[in-house]
Amino acid sequence: MEEVEVAPPRRLEVRVKLLFTSICHTDLSFLKGENELQRKFPRILGHEAAGVVESVGEGVEDLAAGDHVVPIFNGECGACAYCESDKTNLCGTYRVNPFKSTMASDGGTRFSVVDGSGERRPVYHFLNTSTFAEYTVLDAACAVKVHPKAPLDKMCLLSCGISTGVGAAWNTANINTGSTVAVFGLGAVGLAVAEGARLRGAARIIGIDINSEKFTKGKEMGVTDFIDSKACDKPVHEVIREMTDGGVDCSFECTGINDVLREAFLSTHDGWGLTVVLGIHATPKMMPLHPMELFDGRRITGCVFGDFKGKSQLPDLVDKFMNGVHRTHYIFCCKIAFLLSSFYHFFFCSFLFIFPHRNNDIF
Amino acid sequence: MEEVEVAPPRRLEVRVKLLFTSICHTDLSFLKGENELQRKFPRILGHEAAGVVESVGEGVEDLAAGDHVVPIFNGECGACAYCESDKTNLCGTYRVNPFKSTMASDGGTRFSVVDGSGERRPVYHFLNTSTFAEYTVLDAACAVKVHPKAPLDKMCLLSCGISTGVGAAWNTANINTGSTVAVFGLGAVGLAVAEGARLRGAARIIGIDINSEKFTKGKEMGVTDFIDSKACDKPVHEVIREMTDGGVDCSFECTGINDVLREAFLSTHDGWGLTVVLGIHATPKMMPLHPMELFDGRRITGCVFGDFKGKSQLPDLVDKFMNGVHRTHYIFCCKIAFLLSSFYHFFFCSFLFIFPHRNNDIF
Repeated sequence: MEEVEVAPPRRLEVRVKLLFTSICHTDLSFLKGENELQRKFPRILGHEAAGVVESVGEGVEDLAAGDHVVPIFNGECGACAYCESDKTNLCGTYRVNPFKSTMASDGGTRFSVVDGSGERRPVYHFLNTSTFAEYTVLDAACAVKVHPKAPLDKMCLLSCGISTGVGAAWNTANINTGSTVAVFGLGAVGLAVAEGARLRGAARIIGIDINSEKFTKGKEMGVTDFIDSKACDKPVHEVIREMTDGGVDCSFECTGINDVLREAFLSTHDGWGLTVVLGIHATPKMMPLHPMELFDGRRITGCVFGDFKGKSQLPDLVDKFMNGVHRTHYIFCCKIAFLLSSFYHFFFCSFLFIFPHRNNDIF
Repeated sequence: MEEVEVAPPRRLEVRVKLLFTSICHTDLSFLKGENELQRKFPRILGHEAAGVVESVGEGVEDLAAGDHVVPIFNGECGACAYCESDKTNLCGTYRVNPFKSTMASDGGTRFSVVDGSGERRPVYHFLNTSTFAEYTVLDAACAVKVHPKAPLDKMCLLSCGISTGVGAAWNTANINTGSTVAVFGLGAVGLAVAEGARLRGAARIIGIDINSEKFTKGKEMGVTDFIDSKACDKPVHEVIREMTDGGVDCSFECTGINDVLREAFLSTHDGWGLTVVLGIHATPKMMPLHPMELFDGRRITGCVFGDFKGKSQLPDLVDKFMNGVHRTHYIFCCKIAFLLSSFYHFFFCSFLFIFPHRNNDIF
């Protein structure tokens, strides 16, 4: 473990004491450096968290020390052409950007260490958040104030997994009563999709995974049918089409695997099926679809942060959570299990992902 | 030229005397057999036409001898789950199907010839239409009754090009007042897209083509800016982004060229851009897009027959045409020019595409 100095927040920034954080697969992808162009070390990973504002920089008006906040990797300035459009949640300045490793205001970092030679070296930021630390500095546009009584241990999942999955079902796919749904990959995002679809009254929610143990949790979240894709003797999309008289209304790809993306696409009903891509796909693989396949009326779209505008729309999701609308505690249990099983790996690795360049062979 | 016998219409079919027809690039693609699996000869090509019903088969209630009709390659039975859905114009039985070469009712053909040995041989159908003949037999679901005073010489373009382009702008992209638009390929479909966008009040309609002569006609159809892609010293999408402060709201790919598809996709504004694919792409090339590129908020969708439900919605388009709303005579002029320039080739080739198997080396 390394001592990292966290500088005070500058203009339109806040410094946050992090109380809870969880690991998302995206952290691990960056740790491995799967996308070469996005490698930037040393850096502090982590983007799902919750904490308390410790201090605010000049010009911050909507947050104050003591506020409970959830960091969001896809910020919202509220004033740019994107934020003023009702068609996108991608802020012009603070949107998610896997290539970004410094603060927007001055291109600098707020993290630094003094190395063995006494020289101060920058430590880079990650996805507007960097939550695997005791303190972090966020752009105020990337910190959402939540109800002070909201349980922060669970709120951290609203930083990514739950918001992404529930929002994909509500905002991107606009699931309706009676819709049929297929969820490929029953991790936190996939379970949250099922939860969102259940709350919208989906008639059938088919969960697909290679790990049949996921099926138990899936059932609690509203999954009605399970397919163990390893046990299928034909392509999964054929199984789903047979089960649903031609295909589901919406499918959700939550694995980041190209072949799964194709199965998800083909599992929807021709004429009106929609596939929502949520998984993070490594470059440089291209989409495994032929242009003419779009002529069958199947559509495909990406989804970032559940198409929620974080600052303005997440508080309502928190309220719903507090009012018991969501069964997200099941996802929380799932995540905690993941954390515990990865505990040793997580802490053992932490010095590596902060200082991988000490050993250039590692990455 | 060959004498082809055209059998009487069977149940739910009509026999039509064709008065006008035009050539679309799709006819030429099938003539060349570009997609191997779709080759089926001898067959009668042609799918843009207009004519008069000569006789009707049993059970046909909405058409009678003497009615003026426009054949449509993408039929509408009006009764299946697809036709009853407001989300698609792909009929369950009579939708466009490039693999189909026989009639839906009995799997047979209504065209035949007697060859040199005295044997009667079937001649196959094409895209539910087969209009390069004096008479054809259509499913009633693929014949749209038009106003008896509508000029049939121009109506034939509503069989494909005009409906596809105008509908793509109106139904698929839902162009609004002030929208910015890029049209890749200024053939009949591209010009019709421009026309549709102009009628919806698009603020800027950028036409892109390698043939600068197309620009003159484009201007008449509402194109406001022209890009000769051969003369660009940088990718076209960069030129368009510079012209439009980040990209157009909607782009339309009307060429069927994979590289152009990518340029069209990248020329839209991130966050809300939509690319509508109209070109016919040869297999087996995959879409030249990375899944992660969907996360920039750009969307892509296919469009068949302008998302019009032919039988129920085309008559309204005909009325608009008759009321002088459309400038489609410019497209007509364009098509006629094409026909004349291809006249010799067209008739010289006709025996080939009806009987290519007489010389197996040809295809």
